[in-house]
Amino acid sequence: MPQLRKPYLLYLGDAQHPTDAKTACGLRDWCPADVVGEWSLPAATVSVGLTRLSPADAAARGAGSLVIGIASVGGRVPDSWLPDLEAAIVSGLDIVSGMHTRLTSFPSLVAAAARHGVSLHDVRHSTTTFPAGTGIKRSGLRVATVGTDCALGKKYTALALTNALHARGQKATFRATGQTGIMIAGQGIAIDAVVADFIAGAAEVLSPANDSDHWDVIEGQGSLFHPAYAGVTLGLLHGSQPDFLVLCHDPTRKTIEYRPGFPIPALSVAAEQYLVNARITNRQVQLAGVSINSSSLGDEEWARYREQVGQELGVPVCDPLRGGMDPIVSRLIGV
Amino acid sequence: MPQLRKPYLLYLGDAQHPTDAKTACGLRDWCPADVVGEWSLPAATVSVGLTRLSPADAAARGAGSLVIGIASVGGRVPDSWLPDLEAAIVSGLDIVSGMHTRLTSFPSLVAAAARHGVSLHDVRHSTTTFPAGTGIKRSGLRVATVGTDCALGKKYTALALTNALHARGQKATFRATGQTGIMIAGQGIAIDAVVADFIAGAAEVLSPANDSDHWDVIEGQGSLFHPAYAGVTLGLLHGSQPDFLVLCHDPTRKTIEYRPGFPIPALSVAAEQYLVNARITNRQVQLAGVSINSSSLGDEEWARYREQVGQELGVPVCDPLRGGMDPIVSRLIGV
Repeated sequence: MPQLRKPYLLYLGDAQHPTDAKTACGLRDWCPADVVGEWSLPAATVSVGLTRLSPADAAARGAGSLVIGIASVGGRVPDSWLPDLEAAIVSGLDIVSGMHTRLTSFPSLVAAAARHGVSLHDVRHSTTTFPAGTGIKRSGLRVATVGTDCALGKKYTALALTNALHARGQKATFRATGQTGIMIAGQGIAIDAVVADFIAGAAEVLSPANDSDHWDVIEGQGSLFHPAYAGVTLGLLHGSQPDFLVLCHDPTRKTIEYRPGFPIPALSVAAEQYLVNARITNRQVQLAGVSINSSSLGDEEWARYREQVGQELGVPVCDPLRGGMDPIVSRLIGV
Repeated sequence: MPQLRKPYLLYLGDAQHPTDAKTACGLRDWCPADVVGEWSLPAATVSVGLTRLSPADAAARGAGSLVIGIASVGGRVPDSWLPDLEAAIVSGLDIVSGMHTRLTSFPSLVAAAARHGVSLHDVRHSTTTFPAGTGIKRSGLRVATVGTDCALGKKYTALALTNALHARGQKATFRATGQTGIMIAGQGIAIDAVVADFIAGAAEVLSPANDSDHWDVIEGQGSLFHPAYAGVTLGLLHGSQPDFLVLCHDPTRKTIEYRPGFPIPALSVAAEQYLVNARITNRQVQLAGVSINSSSLGDEEWARYREQVGQELGVPVCDPLRGGMDPIVSRLIGV
C-alpha cells in the first residue's frame, strides 16, 4: 500500500458542474486539516470554497501532492490539464489521480516526475500483487460497512463511524477500499482493481493484525445484490473477517442504481444474506446497526421509519448526517 | 477471447512425476482429435503415451501450437525448456502456456515469435479488458457447474455434460473459465485473472446470446464456501445467468482443501446458497443434479450414497466416471 503525501492541493481542472467536484468535496469535508487550498483552470466555474493557491504557492506552504478532485463521466484526463500538472511536478508535488486514464499514460508527466523525483499515484488502478486469502483469524476488532446497493453511503458511514469511535476514546482506523477513501486516508487498496483471485487476500493485507482493542473500520464496496459487482463485495467481506456489520441503505432506492430490473431486497433479507456469507470467515459476526440515508424523509417520517427498522432488525438505526453514529458505537463497544 | 491454434503438440519438459503432467493428460483425454503427439527433454521420465514428435515433425503433420502440458508447483518455466520452445517457434508453432511465469517475460521468445509470426499465449493471465456486467438476460440455455470446494470436478463435470448433451442430439458448447479448460476448448476466459470489477462482465462475454435451444455449459471456479476465492465464484455465477446448476462434490472432503479450519457445508445448504445467489440474475434457476467424485466409495456404498443424496435434494445424482451424466441431461432437456 503506497502512502500518499499530505497535505493536498485540490485540483478542479475546467469543471463546469458542481457534481463533478465530488472528490474534492469529500476531501474538504473528511480531512480538512490535510488540505491547503484549491486550484483550477481559468475556464472552471466551480469552486469548493478553499483558498486559491497555484501549485508553486501550495508547495511553498508545505503541500505534498496535487490531488485531482474531479470525478467526471468517463474519467478522462484532458490534455488541457497537463500544463497545471507539470507545474505541480516542477514544484515538487506528487500527483494523485482517481481517473480512469492513468497519469503514467502521459509520457511528458512520467518524464517530468522522474526528473523532479516525485510520484504519480493512479489510485483507481492496482500495481501491487497480493497473496491469495488465507482465512486465518487476525487479532484486533473489525467492523465493515455493507450495502443494499452501490453509492448509498458505505464510505460516509465508515468515516463517521471511525470519528464516532475516536470521540468515545477508542483506537480506530478507517480502511479505504475505493479511490476517494484512499485519498482521504492517504492509503488503502482500490479493491475493485485487484485481480479477481486475490480480492480476499488484498482485504486481508488492508486490515492486518492489530492490538486486541483496536478497531479497523472497513469501507464496503458494491452489494451482494448487484449483478455486476457482487464478486468484489463478497471477496472483500471474506477477507475483512468482520466481527460486526453495519448495513447501509437508502429507502428511496427500490431497484439497483442503473440496473432497473434488479430489486433491492427487504433489509432483513439483506442483513441475513450478509451474515450468512460473513460467517464463512468469522462465525461470531453480528449485525451492529443500520445506517440510513434519510434525506428524503421528513422528521416524523424518519422517526417512524427508524423505529420500524429498529424493531424489525433489533439493532440501532442511524443516519450519520442526522444524529450521528453513537447508538451503533455503543453497540460495538458494549457500553 | 483469443482462439488457440489446434492441433497441439504436448510438451512435457523435464517432468519427473506423473502428476506434473495433469494438463497434458486432460488434453489427451478430452480433445484427443486435437493432439498430434508429445515431446520432452531427454531428462524427462514421464510420458502420456502419445507418439513422440519433435516440434519440426509436429509442424510438418499440421500442428498449430506447442502446449506446455505441465502444471508443476510454482508454475515456473525453467531456462532448460527454452531451446525446445524456440525450436517450436522456428517451426511455425504458437506456444500456449498456463504457467505463472509469462512466456512474454522471456525476451528471446518474444523476439523469435515476432520474427516467425507466431503467437505466445499465456492463458493463465488476462490481457483483455471487459465491460462491467449488465445483468441483461441473453437468449439461449445455460447450465453452470458449481462446487462445495475447489478442485473436485467442476471442469470434468462440465465437459462430460457437454458430451452427454451432444450424445442426445443437443446443441451445446463447453465454456472454459480456467487454463486447462481453455486449452481443451481452444478458447475461453481465465476468470480468476480478470480485474475484480469485471468478473461478471467477463462471464457475460464468455457466454453470449445464442439460439434459444443452444446450451452453454459453463465451467465453474472456486466455491462460495472458500475463504480466498468465493468472489470469483459469485461474479462468475451472476454473469453466467444459469438456468440450471449442477453441484459438484467429493464426499471425502470434509473441510476446504488447504484451509483446514473451513468446513464444507451439507449438500442441501450448499445447493440452497448457490440458488439464492444465482436468483439475483436468473429468478428461474433450478438445481439440475449433483455430480459426485465417488472414487472413494465401493459399489454398494455408492449406490446407498447416491440414493440418499437424490432423496434429500430431489435431483439426479451422477458420477461422470461411473455411469455418466445422462440422468442429469434428461432433467435438463425434460425428456
